[in-house]
Amino acid sequence: MKKQPETHQPPFSGITTFSRLPHTTSVGDQEFDLAVLGIPFDGLVTNRPGARFGPNAIRQSSIRCRNYSQQMEVGVYERLRAIDVGDVTVNPFDYLETFREIENRVTELQQRGAAVVSLGGDHSILLPILRATNRKYPKLTMIQFDAHTDTSDEGWGQRFHHGTPVRRAIEEGLVQGSRIFQIGIRGSSGSARYNDFANDAGIHILNMEAFHDAKLRGEFVKTLHEVAGSDPCYLTFDVDGIDPAFAPGTGTPVVGGLTSFEALSMMRSFRGLKFIGGDVVEVAPAYDCSDITSLLAATLVFEIAALIAIGRTG
Amino acid sequence: MKKQPETHQPPFSGITTFSRLPHTTSVGDQEFDLAVLGIPFDGLVTNRPGARFGPNAIRQSSIRCRNYSQQMEVGVYERLRAIDVGDVTVNPFDYLETFREIENRVTELQQRGAAVVSLGGDHSILLPILRATNRKYPKLTMIQFDAHTDTSDEGWGQRFHHGTPVRRAIEEGLVQGSRIFQIGIRGSSGSARYNDFANDAGIHILNMEAFHDAKLRGEFVKTLHEVAGSDPCYLTFDVDGIDPAFAPGTGTPVVGGLTSFEALSMMRSFRGLKFIGGDVVEVAPAYDCSDITSLLAATLVFEIAALIAIGRTG
Amino acid sequence: MKKQPETHQPPFSGITTFSRLPHTTSVGDQEFDLAVLGIPFDGLVTNRPGARFGPNAIRQSSIRCRNYSQQMEVGVYERLRAIDVGDVTVNPFDYLETFREIENRVTELQQRGAAVVSLGGDHSILLPILRATNRKYPKLTMIQFDAHTDTSDEGWGQRFHHGTPVRRAIEEGLVQGSRIFQIGIRGSSGSARYNDFANDAGIHILNMEAFHDAKLRGEFVKTLHEVAGSDPCYLTFDVDGIDPAFAPGTGTPVVGGLTSFEALSMMRSFRGLKFIGGDVVEVAPAYDCSDITSLLAATLVFEIAALIAIGRTG
Amino acid sequence: MKKQPETHQPPFSGITTFSRLPHTTSVGDQEFDLAVLGIPFDGLVTNRPGARFGPNAIRQSSIRCRNYSQQMEVGVYERLRAIDVGDVTVNPFDYLETFREIENRVTELQQRGAAVVSLGGDHSILLPILRATNRKYPKLTMIQFDAHTDTSDEGWGQRFHHGTPVRRAIEEGLVQGSRIFQIGIRGSSGSARYNDFANDAGIHILNMEAFHDAKLRGEFVKTLHEVAGSDPCYLTFDVDGIDPAFAPGTGTPVVGGLTSFEALSMMRSFRGLKFIGGDVVEVAPAYDCSDITSLLAATLVFEIAALIAIGRTG
Amino acid sequence: MKKQPETHQPPFSGITTFSRLPHTTSVGDQEFDLAVLGIPFDGLVTNRPGARFGPNAIRQSSIRCRNYSQQMEVGVYERLRAIDVGDVTVNPFDYLETFREIENRVTELQQRGAAVVSLGGDHSILLPILRATNRKYPKLTMIQFDAHTDTSDEGWGQRFHHGTPVRRAIEEGLVQGSRIFQIGIRGSSGSARYNDFANDAGIHILNMEAFHDAKLRGEFVKTLHEVAGSDPCYLTFDVDGIDPAFAPGTGTPVVGGLTSFEALSMMRSFRGLKFIGGDVVEVAPAYDCSDITSLLAATLVFEIAALIAIGRTG
Amino acid sequence: MKKQPETHQPPFSGITTFSRLPHTTSVGDQEFDLAVLGIPFDGLVTNRPGARFGPNAIRQSSIRCRNYSQQMEVGVYERLRAIDVGDVTVNPFDYLETFREIENRVTELQQRGAAVVSLGGDHSILLPILRATNRKYPKLTMIQFDAHTDTSDEGWGQRFHHGTPVRRAIEEGLVQGSRIFQIGIRGSSGSARYNDFANDAGIHILNMEAFHDAKLRGEFVKTLHEVAGSDPCYLTFDVDGIDPAFAPGTGTPVVGGLTSFEALSMMRSFRGLKFIGGDVVEVAPAYDCSDITSLLAATLVFEIAALIAIGRTG
Repeated sequence: MKKQPETHQPPFSGITTFSRLPHTTSVGDQEFDLAVLGIPFDGLVTNRPGARFGPNAIRQSSIRCRNYSQQMEVGVYERLRAIDVGDVTVNPFDYLETFREIENRVTELQQRGAAVVSLGGDHSILLPILRATNRKYPKLTMIQFDAHTDTSDEGWGQRFHHGTPVRRAIEEGLVQGSRIFQIGIRGSSGSARYNDFANDAGIHILNMEAFHDAKLRGEFVKTLHEVAGSDPCYLTFDVDGIDPAFAPGTGTPVVGGLTSFEALSMMRSFRGLKFIGGDVVEVAPAYDCSDITSLLAATLVFEIAALIAIGRTG
Repeated sequence: MKKQPETHQPPFSGITTFSRLPHTTSVGDQEFDLAVLGIPFDGLVTNRPGARFGPNAIRQSSIRCRNYSQQMEVGVYERLRAIDVGDVTVNPFDYLETFREIENRVTELQQRGAAVVSLGGDHSILLPILRATNRKYPKLTMIQFDAHTDTSDEGWGQRFHHGTPVRRAIEEGLVQGSRIFQIGIRGSSGSARYNDFANDAGIHILNMEAFHDAKLRGEFVKTLHEVAGSDPCYLTFDVDGIDPAFAPGTGTPVVGGLTSFEALSMMRSFRGLKFIGGDVVEVAPAYDCSDITSLLAATLVFEIAALIAIGRTG
Repeated sequence: MKKQPETHQPPFSGITTFSRLPHTTSVGDQEFDLAVLGIPFDGLVTNRPGARFGPNAIRQSSIRCRNYSQQMEVGVYERLRAIDVGDVTVNPFDYLETFREIENRVTELQQRGAAVVSLGGDHSILLPILRATNRKYPKLTMIQFDAHTDTSDEGWGQRFHHGTPVRRAIEEGLVQGSRIFQIGIRGSSGSARYNDFANDAGIHILNMEAFHDAKLRGEFVKTLHEVAGSDPCYLTFDVDGIDPAFAPGTGTPVVGGLTSFEALSMMRSFRGLKFIGGDVVEVAPAYDCSDITSLLAATLVFEIAALIAIGRTG
Repeated sequence: MKKQPETHQPPFSGITTFSRLPHTTSVGDQEFDLAVLGIPFDGLVTNRPGARFGPNAIRQSSIRCRNYSQQMEVGVYERLRAIDVGDVTVNPFDYLETFREIENRVTELQQRGAAVVSLGGDHSILLPILRATNRKYPKLTMIQFDAHTDTSDEGWGQRFHHGTPVRRAIEEGLVQGSRIFQIGIRGSSGSARYNDFANDAGIHILNMEAFHDAKLRGEFVKTLHEVAGSDPCYLTFDVDGIDPAFAPGTGTPVVGGLTSFEALSMMRSFRGLKFIGGDVVEVAPAYDCSDITSLLAATLVFEIAALIAIGRTG
Repeated sequence: MKKQPETHQPPFSGITTFSRLPHTTSVGDQEFDLAVLGIPFDGLVTNRPGARFGPNAIRQSSIRCRNYSQQMEVGVYERLRAIDVGDVTVNPFDYLETFREIENRVTELQQRGAAVVSLGGDHSILLPILRATNRKYPKLTMIQFDAHTDTSDEGWGQRFHHGTPVRRAIEEGLVQGSRIFQIGIRGSSGSARYNDFANDAGIHILNMEAFHDAKLRGEFVKTLHEVAGSDPCYLTFDVDGIDPAFAPGTGTPVVGGLTSFEALSMMRSFRGLKFIGGDVVEVAPAYDCSDITSLLAATLVFEIAALIAIGRTG
Repeated sequence: MKKQPETHQPPFSGITTFSRLPHTTSVGDQEFDLAVLGIPFDGLVTNRPGARFGPNAIRQSSIRCRNYSQQMEVGVYERLRAIDVGDVTVNPFDYLETFREIENRVTELQQRGAAVVSLGGDHSILLPILRATNRKYPKLTMIQFDAHTDTSDEGWGQRFHHGTPVRRAIEEGLVQGSRIFQIGIRGSSGSARYNDFANDAGIHILNMEAFHDAKLRGEFVKTLHEVAGSDPCYLTFDVDGIDPAFAPGTGTPVVGGLTSFEALSMMRSFRGLKFIGGDVVEVAPAYDCSDITSLLAATLVFEIAALIAIGRTG
């Protein structure tokens, strides 16, 4: 397996994999550094469904993600042996089975030494990803772009919907609250106590007003680097962290969010951290306009890969 | 409660109920003839989700459904005391609870003597509707517009998904196969034996080729009238029975379907049957174009109401 | 002035006039046979506005309407010296002023011997067109494609909205009811008496059920030819006569309408009548999908021109 | 009447009122603090019509506006007894009658002590709202987000179109020019003298270049607080103040506008002022993309309510 | 290689190939019966470009094309060993190179005994396909669904644009005019002599008026069977043969076309002919609405495969 | 010829020229200052085609570009005698012929003393424009808004595709690298050496990270003014320089770009330079949402005209 070929085919041509990477579902004994993994599951959303079509929409829009990130100043596929491993076998009617499949698949890939970047799917998939990741990386720092803290509790009797993965991850001890850094939080909620769990858990929250305060933003980044140090980092990116003008194709949009540039620029400030994986979730193509959301999501996946490349190879 | 008011407000004005009918959720001791009931549940679909937004999209497009149906030649709201009873309290994560709520709500409304027309929601909701209906109307004839027979079996371990309600209804004895009449069946399937259950159960199927054969269509209608006689009839309308050009806003579209006119004209041939209820399901607004699917669905609901009016009052 | 040039420019090139016809707003002493006239007025609609953008959308989609109609078997611009005379100066806030402008402009063009085909605009513009036309052609036969009879009465105190032009034209003696032929009528209305005025006036109505009865359709066409004889004919085409699947871009769509082919085929049966003008109205581009409605409207304008060519030159 | 219920129903369920508030059209003797009022009138627009469908689109998108505003740090429906009072009975053909209805309805609601937040509708509705408001609050400070100053004059003979309400309000003495604060002004105009009236009247204008100058913006806010003091404030929000990327669904978009975040952040700086009402206007759903404009408008209505809550209760 | 697996994965999951078929680009020594081949080239269109994105859009919409065609009554992938061979390496700037690549690739696949069904791309690709096919099948009958005869001549100096492939094929002796059968021809053209070449060449044309005449349609099908006999047949399907309501996503739409059902039903009448290949072209996804055109195209590809299966295996 | 008339017609009325300017294709001996020229050619794009429809989409959206730019504080059409000269006669199949036509047309217009602002079309058209411009203005400073440097090399054997015009212009000596100023560069590329040509040529590049650094941005503008001095300046604006949220309707979108305001504000900093022409390219309407991209493009054309007006008249 080699780096992404400078294929002679034009970008709109050929069976579509992420960034035109080689594809295999049976990884066998291959060695590789980066696995792009689709998780087309949206069974736990509270508002607009449709993120099950996210992985293939992101792949389709990724055809122009090349090798060299001008944003991160790194040649991603020069540094990483990367592969598109296809999709987890989800069960649209059974989240428990789906969670097991996700956990097993991520574990298998991580055991081969690969960093895994997942294409969602709704944000509930974060929990089984973290369950797998915790085995290999028990001391994880997690950065989260999101409009919501995802520390909500049971809704309509369901403990594991897409508004609760961060709460469950903390409860299950998969990641400490004080090692979680959230960016883009905003909007309305049932009560002022909505964020009590997050605050009690010590989550670092950079809400939108704070994000636009250069001093607060600088301190947040500084603390992040202090906390993470050289320990493994994971980046979970809910596209609703971005403003609906830039990412209309999502299930629970909230106005007043980040611009694409602000998110990319923030990610650039994470260079030097040791990323071991990530995900981009909540892309619902039925609500997209001219594929701008899936293009954004593909770019975010690519830039996460760039951070991984920097973290692995300096 | 009176018939739909010839309101002074223009159609685009006011809180939206179906056809601008009076609205109440607590029906109390009121007497009425027709209840329009939303069922915003889409938890059991195999392809595109989104029918949870169907009921309110249908209501919004129903604002120009007036009183007199030129198609059926009847003044619907002159004949029927009608009401929009709002939505069933669904649980997006728990189909069992949702099915119970549907069954209870429909039972309650039918016990007051009302015909119930439901706005879906995916087609899985047919089963609890029939469970309720069977109590009051054990000898039911069911007419179904659909691209699919919905006699599929368990998929991904789930017995009750939106491709199985007709099979389950027959198995549960809620309606006899020989009293089911399906129109618009077409497309591809796993094998030629796909329809074995339907055929063994004696379902009358008018597939698209047969529909366009005037003789076969005539015989189908004749048999329907013979079978139904003056017994109660129920009409379940999956909008994917209609061609995607006329109904793009649905979850599992199949090309080569009925035109809107063909469906309306077919429905006209049902005049004289004693309709006691019906539903229009699988409207997924995120896939609609300029609301043509929800306008079609609203019209179908209205014409079902017209058939009920004729059946009740001659 | 010559026939439409077989220009060397590709169709998507150049300032856009209808069918790439020569354009002038000051017709001076020119002689010509056909004037295409835009009337961007939508101030009298009861539901969705936006037909003010109809004329330019139709022009944009007309770029591929060439010279020879295969449907009508005539070379339109070989037979007719045609010109796009631009738009009437409408006043969006003053229908009386707008009506006067329309009437004056149409009169001026007709006095030069030109047939006028108007691009709407909402259907209220038919009244001032008929006021002008009546001066030159007092004994007119009018054919109307429409979902509605447009014989409604005052609404919200307004006598001249887009649902009343046919009633007002009859009342003003501009055209006799028995010389009006309506095709495509359908839908719901306030009461069974909705069509009383139309029936009392003797309007010939071919509703959708009747349209699909070959015998009734044949008789309708036969009667039309008997009534019209060699007297002047006018064709007014409300695009909502066509089904919303074919014409979503309109203000008051009604499902169950004509297909495009059915309308074109019906128009072909009018060959031999002496058409002196026509219009295509109610194109609301904001509701269109990929310009299919404006393409249809442009084609209808072109085929009306073909009928005029046949009527003028045999 | 109680605060918004923490309903068991999912957000996409139930008859749609603003923010799922209780609804009544006959307020009787009820006491309440906030009335949300729809005004579906777009008869006075100069470009794209369609804002008549604004109120119901905003309601539909408001289903996720909960109780607690993270932006304003207040529990809105804990503080305010709020109600959706439905729509004013507009006459699409008669602005005079519509203006009277608006004025009467707003007066009636204000006399009960309620703050009124209106859902437009085009911006011409501001004038009758101010006529009503002036009775109760003769010394009003008005803040306006808008791309246009709306101090234009007669157009096509019409004094009261959607480009003139601010001029007329000043002329009628409803609000002093020096107590008007406009944000977001930009674009092209007939001449440099376009803003003469606004300047002569002493309106404070923060155009887009000035908005991005932190010093000028700070001074503008400071002056606003000095002028308003503890006198009543009104906030009128034309969504075209926001950039078309964030608010495509409007009638006269102008590029180069505010982002959603910039508007929300600006509104946060108004905390402490004594808001007694407001409106969000010019939402034209036919031009929206995936409802991002109506979601933005719903959020703006909610945040105006938050400002009212703070102003009322500290 | 086996028939399409009854995969456990839901349809929206996994890397997308046509109908979820196995994929390989290097066919090696494999034996197979059917090759689905993408040709993403649109360099020779006269109006709207964009068909370069057709192959992948068709693949995406093909996920629900299963095995058994109810229309043709055959289990396609039971009968045929089928494979998605990916895309021809096109050069968007060099049609000569692209034509050579197409010809070589089709030749290679046909030499292995496979029937090739191509996904366009614009209709110019028909010429190199026929050049290849002519080697193996010199006596070919060709059936063409299309709005245009594609017997136009040089335009802007280009002999081989998408309006000329049929003329060039006849001129090059690849297929005799009298063995060509065209369905769906309609619209306007430069002159009445537009079809002279087609008529002189003896092409059988069933235009839209003739299509709707059951007698003429019957004779056309009868003649087709007489001419084709047991000789090889090829089916080229330009989606603009279908009406824009059913297929908006195409480059040169013409109103008044076939419905999807009419096309499928016509194709059913071809059973018994010995199909050795086919194509579906001119799918331009940027103009599609909710993927109805690509779904239609996928279905047409599948039904062509069904005809091939019947022709091969009886 | 006079300045843009303050026409009595509403903006949505009349045959559409840019900004409702007078139109002529044969300029004869007229004297004028500004020519708006359409170039509907998109034959050299590497990804999404469709910019051939750009010029007329921009014209349609320009109807509200009046006379006075608030951004630039100048009355454009008071200062400049302006005219819409229609479109270059392009050949969609022959870029060489098209390039000659462009070069000739621009030369002809410049020789009359007019500044030419072109409406693209893809960015390849810049080369022939610069060939013409170089004759009259051999010492040119060029400012370029773009996501890409357009200094790529041959692709698929084509030297002159839309990614190479800047490289070719430098190679042909039409403009010196050190006199080129690029703004908005970002995204991914094949390798880190992607920009080698640009850097070697001395192009001044303000990529997105640098743009957001006020100091770097200030220096860039300062250098620009120093280099340009009072020599002629040309502004080429690829709309993909703007973020896809603001400009979805383009062929090769890259996330993380400029906002509309940032671009306009940057352009304001160019006041005082002596602009002699410009272009806005890569508007692909099929990918636009509610015309926000073409509205932006029209505004950019207008503001370029404003800069020209300032440069000509102080």
